[in-house]
Amino acid sequence: MPTYRLTIEYEGTRFSGWQIQPRGRTVQGVLLDALREVTGEPRLDLQGAGRTDAGVHALGQVASLRCQRTLRPADVAHRLDALLPADLAVRSITPAPHGFHARHDALERSYRYQLARRRSAFGKRWTWWVGEPLDLAAMEQAAAALVGRHDFAAFGKRGGGKDSTVVVLSTAALVATGDIVLVRFVASHFLWNQVRRMVGALVAVGRGDADSRDVPRWLDGTASPPPLGAPAAGLFLEAVRYGQEPFMLPPPIPIGVPVADPGGTR
Amino acid sequence: MPTYRLTIEYEGTRFSGWQIQPRGRTVQGVLLDALREVTGEPRLDLQGAGRTDAGVHALGQVASLRCQRTLRPADVAHRLDALLPADLAVRSITPAPHGFHARHDALERSYRYQLARRRSAFGKRWTWWVGEPLDLAAMEQAAAALVGRHDFAAFGKRGGGKDSTVVVLSTAALVATGDIVLVRFVASHFLWNQVRRMVGALVAVGRGDADSRDVPRWLDGTASPPPLGAPAAGLFLEAVRYGQEPFMLPPPIPIGVPVADPGGTR
Repeated sequence: MPTYRLTIEYEGTRFSGWQIQPRGRTVQGVLLDALREVTGEPRLDLQGAGRTDAGVHALGQVASLRCQRTLRPADVAHRLDALLPADLAVRSITPAPHGFHARHDALERSYRYQLARRRSAFGKRWTWWVGEPLDLAAMEQAAAALVGRHDFAAFGKRGGGKDSTVVVLSTAALVATGDIVLVRFVASHFLWNQVRRMVGALVAVGRGDADSRDVPRWLDGTASPPPLGAPAAGLFLEAVRYGQEPFMLPPPIPIGVPVADPGGTR
Repeated sequence: MPTYRLTIEYEGTRFSGWQIQPRGRTVQGVLLDALREVTGEPRLDLQGAGRTDAGVHALGQVASLRCQRTLRPADVAHRLDALLPADLAVRSITPAPHGFHARHDALERSYRYQLARRRSAFGKRWTWWVGEPLDLAAMEQAAAALVGRHDFAAFGKRGGGKDSTVVVLSTAALVATGDIVLVRFVASHFLWNQVRRMVGALVAVGRGDADSRDVPRWLDGTASPPPLGAPAAGLFLEAVRYGQEPFMLPPPIPIGVPVADPGGTR
C-alpha cells in the first residue's frame, strides 16, 4: 500500500484536539475530509504521532497516510493549500516506507510550552500569562530533577490502556527570551496530561509555592506534585523523530508573541 | 498638566484602527475608556504617534496622555493589565515633559511588513501569504531605489490636509528568515497608505510583474507604480523615536509565524 509521511502545523484553539470524534472539529477529521477530496479515495488511513488535546498546537505533528493508489505529493500539497482552513497547514508530504506508522514508529517527541511574564496583545491563545515574577533558577533546578527514567504516575495517566507509567524524559530545558520563557520536553512518549502537569509544577516552583528539592519525592510517590496543570493554549507539539534521522527541532523563538526587549538600535 | 508617555501593543484585527470614531471599536477609544476608569478623570487627552488603519497592528505605538492629576504609573499599569481586552496591552507608562505630544514630537517612525512565502497555520492575521516565488534580490534593488528624499505622491495621500507629499525615507530593508520576509521602513512620517502601497510594489517586483529599474519613474511621475496595496494584516507599527533617544527597534523576528527551517539538532 502506498504510504506517505505528512508534517503538519495547526493552531489548536478551534480544534477539539487531533483525534477524530463523532462530534467536534478535529485535526484528523478536517484533514481526512480534505485528503478524501484531493485523492478521490473514500477509505484512507491517517495516523498522527501525537494525539494532542483540545487547544494544543502543533509546529511539526507527523502523520502517516495509507491509500490505495500512488499520489503525486507536490500536487496533493498544492491542492491541500487551497482546501484547508487557515488554522491547518501541511508543511510537507513525502513517500514513506511500506508499513510506516507515525505513532508506533516514533522514537522521540518534543513539546514546547510558552510562558509569558508580561501581558502581550498577541499571545493570549499561545501563552500562559503568569503575572507573578518567576524564579527561573529554581525552575531550572526542578526541570533538571525531572530528567531521567522515572515513574511519572503522579503527573498523568497512561494513554491507550497500557499499564506502565515509566517515561524516560531526556530533556527538560528552559530558554528565557525577554519576557517569554520557553520550556522544552523531549521523551520517547508522554503520559496523558504529563507535559501540562509538569509545567504547572515548574510554575509553582517559580512562584515559590513549591520547592525544587521536592521533585524526587513527587517522583517516588512520597509527596504529591502541585495539582494545577498548565492551560492547553501554551502547548505545542514541536517535532517527532524516526529511525536514524537527526532530530530537527525548531529554534527557540516564541510563536505569536513579540520579544519584549528591543534587540538594539538600527 | 501632568503628562505621561505610554508604549502600546495591539493586535489590530478586531480594531477599526487607532483613531476614535463615533461608531466602531478603536484602540484610542478602548484605551481612553480604561484610562477614565482607572484615573477617575472624565476628560483625558490621549494622542497616538501613528493613526494606524483598521487591521494594522502595533508593537510599539506611543501615545501621550495629559490629565488633571498626577498618576502613579506602576498602579495605572497594573490596573490596565486587568482591565484591557486581550488584544491591547500597555507596555509602559512613564512621566513625560510638560507639553509632550506623541504625534507632533515624533522624529522617526518604523513600520514592519510580514510576507509569508509558505502557508502557515499561525499567520493568517499577521502576514500576507504570497503563494508565488519571490525574487528577493530584485525586491532589494527596488527597496534601495525608494530610499531617500522623494515625492511619494504616487504611493499615497498626505494625511491631515497638509500639502507636501515629500517624504525622507531613511530605511527600506528586507530580512528573510526561513519562509518569512520582513520589510522594514523608517521615515520621519508616512503618507496615508504609503507603506502598504510600497509593499505592494515590492511584491509586484518580486513576482516579476514590475521591474525594479522602474522605481525612479514611479517617483518622478513618468510611470505609475503597481496599484495593488498590501493587505492591512501584515503591517505593524514597530517603534517611534523622540528627541535624542536611540531608536530601539524590535529584533527582526516574525510575529505569529513559526520560522520554517528548523534551527538544527538538539
